[in-house]
Amino acid sequence: MDTPDVLAWRDGYIEALDQTALPHRIRILRLGTVDELIDAIRSLAIRGAPVLGAAGALGVALAVRQGHREGWDPDRIAAQIGRIAAARPTAVNLAREVEAVSRHLTDADNRAATEAAALDVLARTAKVSLAISERGAAWLLERTRESTRELSHERTPGTRLRVHTHCNTGALACLGWGTALGVIRALSQQDALDHVIVDETRPLLQGARLTCWELDQLGIGHRLVADGAGPFLISQGLADAVVVGADRIARNGDVANKVGTFALALAARHTGIPFVVAAPESTIDLATADGSRIPLELRPDDEITEPAAPRGTQALNYAFDITPADLITAIVTEDRVITHLG
Amino acid sequence: MDTPDVLAWRDGYIEALDQTALPHRIRILRLGTVDELIDAIRSLAIRGAPVLGAAGALGVALAVRQGHREGWDPDRIAAQIGRIAAARPTAVNLAREVEAVSRHLTDADNRAATEAAALDVLARTAKVSLAISERGAAWLLERTRESTRELSHERTPGTRLRVHTHCNTGALACLGWGTALGVIRALSQQDALDHVIVDETRPLLQGARLTCWELDQLGIGHRLVADGAGPFLISQGLADAVVVGADRIARNGDVANKVGTFALALAARHTGIPFVVAAPESTIDLATADGSRIPLELRPDDEITEPAAPRGTQALNYAFDITPADLITAIVTEDRVITHLG
Repeated sequence: MDTPDVLAWRDGYIEALDQTALPHRIRILRLGTVDELIDAIRSLAIRGAPVLGAAGALGVALAVRQGHREGWDPDRIAAQIGRIAAARPTAVNLAREVEAVSRHLTDADNRAATEAAALDVLARTAKVSLAISERGAAWLLERTRESTRELSHERTPGTRLRVHTHCNTGALACLGWGTALGVIRALSQQDALDHVIVDETRPLLQGARLTCWELDQLGIGHRLVADGAGPFLISQGLADAVVVGADRIARNGDVANKVGTFALALAARHTGIPFVVAAPESTIDLATADGSRIPLELRPDDEITEPAAPRGTQALNYAFDITPADLITAIVTEDRVITHLG
Repeated sequence: MDTPDVLAWRDGYIEALDQTALPHRIRILRLGTVDELIDAIRSLAIRGAPVLGAAGALGVALAVRQGHREGWDPDRIAAQIGRIAAARPTAVNLAREVEAVSRHLTDADNRAATEAAALDVLARTAKVSLAISERGAAWLLERTRESTRELSHERTPGTRLRVHTHCNTGALACLGWGTALGVIRALSQQDALDHVIVDETRPLLQGARLTCWELDQLGIGHRLVADGAGPFLISQGLADAVVVGADRIARNGDVANKVGTFALALAARHTGIPFVVAAPESTIDLATADGSRIPLELRPDDEITEPAAPRGTQALNYAFDITPADLITAIVTEDRVITHLG
């Protein structure tokens, strides 16, 4: 894409493409303090599980810079780093990459070491998403070829796939190519993609704002649908596969992802098409036994009530949902394809 | 409700509460021509399957008045009446009530006869919705008592029900008490309701704008949720039943209703709670064999793309979806409860 970096480290500042301004404005945030970074994360200017991990990594470097500037105090630095790790609760990547870079903290001047470690996280995040994209596309093509053979499915081999996706999982969320949207991009590059059906993804419309924008930039055909329509359109045979990302994957394979994902998984199962989760290994959290233990972020009511509902209306605004492992056909990571879940 | 009539006939004009202005403004439309009525129907200022039927009935009276004013021409009147019947395609009530009142057309001066017939439809629509409300509440209470006995469900007898609903099916849509929202109101009157979970109902937010407003007026506790969250919240045990309305019911029991309904039915089945459709007998269309024959209105892209998506984004904006009969626990009408569908 001929667009600014999603996330970068420049002269001791984090530069981030403000994802709340897209698609109508390109605005770069220049973040010099931990407070500014946390605000950007909470407001979703910086978002997407892998990008949150990379931002957390850079956040440690930022906290160290700020610490040196304001007079080095190890307790204060630790507290600042803890605040970054906890800025949003669901995506495990954030806390995990903060911790990874924090290992490079020493009593000595640790600016160079933490910055190098954070930049490593950035490079690795992009590289991992490319590997997921290739592996996911290859698996999907193989799998749908098999269905065609076994079930005399109407699609003939060589026909291009129609993929349904949710939220935003492209370069904006993941660097590189993305996870679910990376798989879609890889299918497109192999001329194996017909078009994409994109859920608008209420309440913050990351599908409408960000995924449509990325697909537009890539020249990939797509249609935007209301979240409520997604499961129905799947049931009517309008998609060959559902591919989504993940914010956290529990040990048993249950997946936390943007709210609305569970309904797509139910519809995919009902219709008999594959439901695929594309996510880095770092999203798998072995410390969490199952989906019921994943903390689900409850965001402010006004994201849903404003401006349409009567004043004083109360909402229940879970940002994520849990899809149980037994509804998931495959989890594709940079290293492997996990099937036979649940 | 201490609010203006949803729909009325006054001095040869149709007066309608403009449902696009709610909840923030109360605006009464005064419609004197068929064109004005059709505009109000297409823009959803007048909406809801039973209210569309009543508006169609009044529309015939309006066409007759306009015909007498402009010089009586039977062909022109028939064409005007045909345009009203076809103003929106999915709800069968519209065409059906237009036809019912059209039977009173004669060559003589038929103003009085058509107006009386149209007012009969209005009165019947309100009365029918009250009967549905009472029957639906009684059935749900009986059914959930049974579940409690049979399945040693956690809810104890006498506990109030938590009901999940979609779109708007109250007085605004149906006159009287409503269909699904009427059932909820009857439960509340019997002190058998805990609270209501309301889907916002994209793209036009009838849940957020209209259902929350009606529940507010009635003093019934409710929470607003994103459409994508509904199926997940059901799966987590946050509702004891899903109750929705219908725009058309095919002979085999398949139901066309506001897009997003199918996903709730899947979730209700997955979770083992009743999925109930509350609708007048006039919604049942014996001439339509099954859901695949129901015309589903495809509305303009910009209802979904504006203002969030990049300019030029294409949508797929079906206003309704089909829930197959085998996912429906019961259809409640003013006359009966139909179970063992599909």
